[in-house]
Amino acid sequence: MPEIRLVPIQEFQRVSAAGIDYYRKLELIADMCRLNALNMVKRAGSGHLGSSLSSLDIVVALYYSVMNTAKLGLEHPDRDIYFSSKGHDVPGFYAVLYSLGLLPKEKFINLRRFGGTCGHPDVGTPGVEANSGSLGMGISKAKGMAIAKKMSGHGGGVFVMTGDGELQEGQIWESLQTVAHQKVNNIQVIVDCNKIQTDRPVKEVINLGDLQRKFEDFGWHAARGDGHDFAQLEKIFREFENVTDRPKALIADTVKGKGISFMEGPQALKDGGGLYRWHSGAPDDDAFEAAHAEIAERINRKLGEAGLEPLTNELIETRGRRTTRLKDTAEKVVDAYGEALAKLGEKRPDIVVLDADLAADCGLRFFEAKFPDRFIENGIAEQDMVSTAGGLALQGFLPIVNSFGVFLASRANEQIYTNSTEGTKIIYVCHYAGLIPAGPGQSHQSLRDISLLGAMPNLVAIEPANATETALALEWCVNEAKENCMLRLVISPSPRTIALPANYKFEPGQGCVLRNGNGAAIFAYGPVMLNEVLLAGELLAEKGFALKVVNMPWLNRVDVAWFEAVTGDCSNIFVLDDHSPYGGLGDNLLNASLSSVKLRARKFHKFAVEGFPACGTPAEALAYHRLDGENLAERILDVVKADKE
Amino acid sequence: MPEIRLVPIQEFQRVSAAGIDYYRKLELIADMCRLNALNMVKRAGSGHLGSSLSSLDIVVALYYSVMNTAKLGLEHPDRDIYFSSKGHDVPGFYAVLYSLGLLPKEKFINLRRFGGTCGHPDVGTPGVEANSGSLGMGISKAKGMAIAKKMSGHGGGVFVMTGDGELQEGQIWESLQTVAHQKVNNIQVIVDCNKIQTDRPVKEVINLGDLQRKFEDFGWHAARGDGHDFAQLEKIFREFENVTDRPKALIADTVKGKGISFMEGPQALKDGGGLYRWHSGAPDDDAFEAAHAEIAERINRKLGEAGLEPLTNELIETRGRRTTRLKDTAEKVVDAYGEALAKLGEKRPDIVVLDADLAADCGLRFFEAKFPDRFIENGIAEQDMVSTAGGLALQGFLPIVNSFGVFLASRANEQIYTNSTEGTKIIYVCHYAGLIPAGPGQSHQSLRDISLLGAMPNLVAIEPANATETALALEWCVNEAKENCMLRLVISPSPRTIALPANYKFEPGQGCVLRNGNGAAIFAYGPVMLNEVLLAGELLAEKGFALKVVNMPWLNRVDVAWFEAVTGDCSNIFVLDDHSPYGGLGDNLLNASLSSVKLRARKFHKFAVEGFPACGTPAEALAYHRLDGENLAERILDVVKADKE
Repeated sequence: MPEIRLVPIQEFQRVSAAGIDYYRKLELIADMCRLNALNMVKRAGSGHLGSSLSSLDIVVALYYSVMNTAKLGLEHPDRDIYFSSKGHDVPGFYAVLYSLGLLPKEKFINLRRFGGTCGHPDVGTPGVEANSGSLGMGISKAKGMAIAKKMSGHGGGVFVMTGDGELQEGQIWESLQTVAHQKVNNIQVIVDCNKIQTDRPVKEVINLGDLQRKFEDFGWHAARGDGHDFAQLEKIFREFENVTDRPKALIADTVKGKGISFMEGPQALKDGGGLYRWHSGAPDDDAFEAAHAEIAERINRKLGEAGLEPLTNELIETRGRRTTRLKDTAEKVVDAYGEALAKLGEKRPDIVVLDADLAADCGLRFFEAKFPDRFIENGIAEQDMVSTAGGLALQGFLPIVNSFGVFLASRANEQIYTNSTEGTKIIYVCHYAGLIPAGPGQSHQSLRDISLLGAMPNLVAIEPANATETALALEWCVNEAKENCMLRLVISPSPRTIALPANYKFEPGQGCVLRNGNGAAIFAYGPVMLNEVLLAGELLAEKGFALKVVNMPWLNRVDVAWFEAVTGDCSNIFVLDDHSPYGGLGDNLLNASLSSVKLRARKFHKFAVEGFPACGTPAEALAYHRLDGENLAERILDVVKADKE
Repeated sequence: MPEIRLVPIQEFQRVSAAGIDYYRKLELIADMCRLNALNMVKRAGSGHLGSSLSSLDIVVALYYSVMNTAKLGLEHPDRDIYFSSKGHDVPGFYAVLYSLGLLPKEKFINLRRFGGTCGHPDVGTPGVEANSGSLGMGISKAKGMAIAKKMSGHGGGVFVMTGDGELQEGQIWESLQTVAHQKVNNIQVIVDCNKIQTDRPVKEVINLGDLQRKFEDFGWHAARGDGHDFAQLEKIFREFENVTDRPKALIADTVKGKGISFMEGPQALKDGGGLYRWHSGAPDDDAFEAAHAEIAERINRKLGEAGLEPLTNELIETRGRRTTRLKDTAEKVVDAYGEALAKLGEKRPDIVVLDADLAADCGLRFFEAKFPDRFIENGIAEQDMVSTAGGLALQGFLPIVNSFGVFLASRANEQIYTNSTEGTKIIYVCHYAGLIPAGPGQSHQSLRDISLLGAMPNLVAIEPANATETALALEWCVNEAKENCMLRLVISPSPRTIALPANYKFEPGQGCVLRNGNGAAIFAYGPVMLNEVLLAGELLAEKGFALKVVNMPWLNRVDVAWFEAVTGDCSNIFVLDDHSPYGGLGDNLLNASLSSVKLRARKFHKFAVEGFPACGTPAEALAYHRLDGENLAERILDVVKADKE
């Protein structure tokens, strides 16, 4: 049974205080952080290990050797500031903060839990200086902080870590140009050049060329070095202190997964047939135990060589050995999408599929393998991807563009709009839609995408309830739609397979009744929220209240006649958006009701994700937002009771 | 009295057919295009001359010497494709298309008129291959077209023109990396390197360094040459034909305003005290006549030297000599904003103002001159600007971020969102809001911005009615607001100065009655639409219908008690959005009405800009969308009559 163990802060203090070789000390501390990061990711059930491990030595060097932050404290105006632009390397980062006593234990051991730390950095966590998670923004943000320091007359520099894949993002190069021109020289960038992005080598996805030279072309002082060599790192940062006439960048050569032999890039690529599997996700029990043993053994060997007592650690939790997990048995709409896509690819030679380094998560590997000449892997460059799709569409192809909703609808919003003015047809697939999963945090939970695309006059938005409806929806988008389409898909395994009526026909503007009733009608969409409203229906039935549950996959096109008919005599209409209350299905149904005397007489109530989304487990996030079945049942009853009064 | 003259296509045919030196011929044709571009901009009353003139010789070279497009025709699948990524150089581009018979005369002479050609390229215009107007997208779009050609087995290459200032946009560098990696070698980029952006030299705004070297380091074959030397241009493009293993770029050194002596960059900068005034806007009558005479004299001199008859041209229109224009007398909310900003800058040392190369249009020059150390000119890099603002805010400053709404709310949407998750306060000013002016077209008319920012839980959106309310709104945002703010400002002179009540207090969630009535109530905002609804009120009064007109500057915060009170007994509530019908004030008032029994009983009607916005004069655009006073009066009466039935 896998045990989650913590190397407690006392052990870090013991090693820090020991009279041993300085660089050996840093190596030990870094490995102890590795062990903690590994355990916390295992406990969380997810997290980004590969990048945490590749960047960890650099972060240790910065906090233990280079920056004044630990000494001055996190509130001091003259402190050096560090943050990671890529953001997902938080397991390693939190481990370093914990080791210095900057992050409390309770927060550290609760990675991706409500009240703990988030899967991407949030400034509510001690030690986190900026929010990140969507790539490419960090150097710009660092520039603002560095300018502020100068304007305030405060000391300290700003250190920001980027990934190498991250340099595919255009904003990086925007910021390199402006930082250099604006002479914001108290910035130091470290590129964690671990050569692998989500699951493939960077140079295979989009080759970045000679990075040191590029940075120099852009007006920076650039050095290259080994990101795992503490002596070298220290030397480079010392040299940087003497460079005051331009901003500084270290291209640090690192190994993704460094410190766990089977996670290290070259080995892992071999084992994975060219694919890297340790970018995100918790290792299974066997891999976890092997990794833990390997690091612990190495630490204890080095402690012994240094004449120090072996490591003690604290048992945090014993996990039951998991035999099956939801993801092994449940359906996944993304898989249904991927299969339907490949099928359509056979019949429609005009389909071209585009991706931005998320092919596995977006279910595209099947299509990619079958039709490599019609698959464009664009790397971490969503704006370029969307405009490329526009060019393809102008030339008669049918592009199907994929990314997470937070990135696609927001980062590439203007590009989508510009395409839409050209009168072509493009299908945009917004993956990872909605509140769940909530562990990665607000940079990844897509709760604005319907509102971001809703004002486009020629775009239809659809979110299917299950695998069957996913295939129907994609087929409709490809074969029937005359306009642009946005297909919205959750990324998780479905909590239950939503049962659609037999002979269900996928009709524009019409949904279907999942559960009959006349007490009130609730409209919802997608496997996550439909599961909750069906639960609510079951709970309400026990109380003698018959809730009608309607699946409405058409988010911005409503057949008013159908809407009237399906509402029946229910005097209260509820709408549940897996989205902000602003601009989702709720607003669309509300607007549709204006044109019907019958519907305008009903009372209209919106449920949605209000405020910023909570970070935590699915249950924690749903409960926080009062969108779990139990809370929904209670809220519905409250409204209906108040209505009667 | 200024005369608008057209060099007719017969003259181009005459010169093309003449047996004269080839390069002389191209010079003549280019100058004849210059003359036409000048005249059409004057006729339109606006347009981008500086860039049209700098790029024109290159466009002539491409269409007359290099590309097969004119020969094969605009529909041929093997044709070479050209388009301009910057887009605003359409006056020159349309002139070349016209000269080749590709663009009909009626379209060409109606620049920025409804049914004519748009101020930025639209694919509805013959010869326009892609829509542009917002910078940085063109190389990506060209990539899509070029990939499509290869996939279809079609011949021809894709030529795309960019500006040099445009290379400050991050998407450019995204696309350079992906084009090179994806080996899309049938692309040729020409950078119109005219050294000046909106009104200042590029190297002063954000220095781009050694462009040729940068392109090479990004994997391109790059050449540098004189963009006004036809022989050199031809040679370079011929050399490019032999480069097949990488994409090609020509950094073309050009002169902004080339061909009109006082518009040429170096001279104009001298004359303008360091500011360039010919980027956009029609020259006044004297300047126009001088420019026309200069080009015509040069053409006739060259015709004479070549033994050809002088130029004949066709009188299109005689313009009345304008003594005053609306802009000379009317108030401008932007000016009020700029003054208020500078005043607040004195009292609030924490204010930092940011701009993205639009300082004059955004009214920021006054603040910039008073507080140069708190003004950040960020160049054409909105994403970087917004994230920089985020960093400043994290360090305790109050950033006030400016750009056109289309760019700020859309291009930098994800950066605004990320900032909003950090709990800081930033003020975003979306200039150029709404339908008017309509000449530049859909890339500039901002009709989605409220919807793009509306789902952010901690952002207040305000659009003031007049200069007074603009100052009040800005002061409120700076001194009172606890959340982020979006201040929405039209860019035009106000058609009338909206008269606010005496003792008007600027209260969150509350507007004010501009015209009393009990027939129906209409809520609107901003000087453009308020002018139209007041006109409607005046017209309806003549018909015995008393329309209540309410200014509601709070776009997403409604005081429901005030809303109830001001609605009074009006059974019909109208809302007019200077925006899409989706996500604007209409939807916010509709949602607010749900919580009031009194308001839910009313009938709710939304007016807004539906579909894509029309391009044309203000009167043409308003009439097209039925949002002018006359149409509004009619639509209101129709609704009220139907209601009674």
